[in-house]
Amino acid sequence: MENLLQIPTSEATIRTNSIKTLMQEQGIDAILISDNANKFYVSGRVYNGYTYIPSNGDAIHFIRRPIGLSGENVEYIHKLENIAEILISEGQELPHSLGLELDLAPYSVVQRIAKIFPDTKIANASGIMRQARSIKSEYEIELIRLSGIKHAKSYSQICDIYTPNMTDLEFQVEIERISRLNGCLGQFRISGDSMEIYMGNVICGENADAPSPYDFAMGGAGMHPSLPVGCNGTTIKNNMAIMVDVNGNYTGYTTDMSRVFSVGSLDELSIKAHECSRRICQELSTIGKPGVEAKALYNRAIEIVTEKGLEYLFMGHRQKAGFIGHGVGIEINESPVIAPRSRDILAVGNVIALEPKFVIPGIGAVGIENTYVVTPNGMECITNAPEEIISLDRN
Amino acid sequence: MENLLQIPTSEATIRTNSIKTLMQEQGIDAILISDNANKFYVSGRVYNGYTYIPSNGDAIHFIRRPIGLSGENVEYIHKLENIAEILISEGQELPHSLGLELDLAPYSVVQRIAKIFPDTKIANASGIMRQARSIKSEYEIELIRLSGIKHAKSYSQICDIYTPNMTDLEFQVEIERISRLNGCLGQFRISGDSMEIYMGNVICGENADAPSPYDFAMGGAGMHPSLPVGCNGTTIKNNMAIMVDVNGNYTGYTTDMSRVFSVGSLDELSIKAHECSRRICQELSTIGKPGVEAKALYNRAIEIVTEKGLEYLFMGHRQKAGFIGHGVGIEINESPVIAPRSRDILAVGNVIALEPKFVIPGIGAVGIENTYVVTPNGMECITNAPEEIISLDRN
Repeated sequence: MENLLQIPTSEATIRTNSIKTLMQEQGIDAILISDNANKFYVSGRVYNGYTYIPSNGDAIHFIRRPIGLSGENVEYIHKLENIAEILISEGQELPHSLGLELDLAPYSVVQRIAKIFPDTKIANASGIMRQARSIKSEYEIELIRLSGIKHAKSYSQICDIYTPNMTDLEFQVEIERISRLNGCLGQFRISGDSMEIYMGNVICGENADAPSPYDFAMGGAGMHPSLPVGCNGTTIKNNMAIMVDVNGNYTGYTTDMSRVFSVGSLDELSIKAHECSRRICQELSTIGKPGVEAKALYNRAIEIVTEKGLEYLFMGHRQKAGFIGHGVGIEINESPVIAPRSRDILAVGNVIALEPKFVIPGIGAVGIENTYVVTPNGMECITNAPEEIISLDRN
Repeated sequence: MENLLQIPTSEATIRTNSIKTLMQEQGIDAILISDNANKFYVSGRVYNGYTYIPSNGDAIHFIRRPIGLSGENVEYIHKLENIAEILISEGQELPHSLGLELDLAPYSVVQRIAKIFPDTKIANASGIMRQARSIKSEYEIELIRLSGIKHAKSYSQICDIYTPNMTDLEFQVEIERISRLNGCLGQFRISGDSMEIYMGNVICGENADAPSPYDFAMGGAGMHPSLPVGCNGTTIKNNMAIMVDVNGNYTGYTTDMSRVFSVGSLDELSIKAHECSRRICQELSTIGKPGVEAKALYNRAIEIVTEKGLEYLFMGHRQKAGFIGHGVGIEINESPVIAPRSRDILAVGNVIALEPKFVIPGIGAVGIENTYVVTPNGMECITNAPEEIISLDRN
């Protein structure tokens, strides 16, 4: 028998307590989680089933698969309907209000759950889970730091795999390989189903200006209209900027990092924009302290970019992204969001990727992306790798 | 300007007509699609937005991103609410009944759509989309055949990448690399969010018997509890069976194929089970004709397995999968499902993966998986590659 919990009990308690505090504030008696990322948050493991968390009791794990898990409050079920039966048989009062992940759970599933709790008011627990997960525990931050170290190691090997006349796809495939061999899990976990990507995004030349349907900071036409993002088969040539934004999920928690490579030197505009991105990251990480509004970071970035006369290239040229940063953790699109209308306020334990990038038509995309932990003194960078434009033909 | 449609207009018409026929049978006036796979089915492209299909008119593509698409019935919107406004401004009658993907769309999204169509009855269109997509057009079958050819090409290169003392992970990473270089898009598109996998599944030795939470035919512990499926870092040793079940998405349409490799020879039981799997595929592909119940194929497989005394190893040992085959196409889990309680009936144009596999404790998993097109004469195999257990140390 294997223990259900894949994190220390004390850590599980910290996480469920932060959820319960939010439930109590919102008057929700219990929540029932079905999203894989949320189940992983609560238990350190993905399983097929549901996690039930009463605001005044212990989490119960209702499991369909895999077989053979043990631990406190582990209950095997055949179907959803068993959950209410088990709660009743254990003498638990059914909740008056039940929080579900209404922003994620399919309509049919919510209806089915509502039917087995006929006297219960259904509430939306998506916000609670987002909020709880936006403040990382020390344990989680250690995992994210470890991802950052491995992520940087993979990036340090990128120069070695370049060979002349490679396409962006071939370059990406070799980056995928070294990342995987260094322990990258590959999976790009994203909340919701509107965004899709394989292992990351390598774009160069004119392709950087190809608009994508997805809400990523950078586009690219992709190899196929079923997955229209990223590299498109462009042959890497002299004087192109090659933006590498590849998966940092090494621990179940991800870091997000981008670096720019080139063959030969880049033009003045590209270098100026790249340095502007570095300056934005530097300055925002200094002013980004607990209590600061996320939108203040966005606005300051726009100020800097406008001073430099680079606004027309910032966060895209033909099509622009509406944010310059986002929370990361189990998923790539967590809270807080660094965007003009964001209502998020920075807090200790937020982990945030900043990605002030520029698209230079015909050249590619430039700028850096780093992941930071919000501390009382500002944002500490945990993706430590050289930030300048890196020459692939230095040897 | 780029044309929205990435398939010929005549092909788009075939697909929307098959949807409309099902809508008319069920008395649904219009459907509004938001799932990426369904949008790709209708237009040959993934975009951010919604496809509106009235039962008596042309599909309208309501697009948020990317910019710059043109074509008939392309309408740009800022938000969901614009859809009803545009329909009214064009003099279209709003539908009395509107089908939505209730098995996929989040509860909050459905509520928001219902609000902008206040006098409309909401119906579930998930079944319609599943059913329409289960019968592939000739155009789609050509794309699937092409995936099968490329998939087989990648598998033919697997022997070349094996080196002694590799782990299952290292072996998988090299298979990922050759697949990607041969044009594999990598993305494993799966309907719903309960199943997750990276690029495929390579399992060997005892790990084949590790139960997974996901509804895949084979398990494996995986490298991490956030993605508990597939290889787990086992070193490949003599007399182990190595099951390779890696992504066949080369065209936006996928084939599903598994083959078994070994270093040294396998024991008699493994060879017997492997040959039994081949026999099941052979026989089921002969009896699998239009009009045959999907469950009849399942039952016949169980008969063959029971005759051979191999039932205790079939479709898993400690934990068993409840099906032996499934439809494939844009996604890996389409209709029909070859399972004991399936109500599906085979039809011309179904594309089905059969995967009668066995777990041999301590050795690994054996058996084959092929993808077939249902024709009037039976199931035609389109993943043509040697089916015997392939020795990795033959050179």
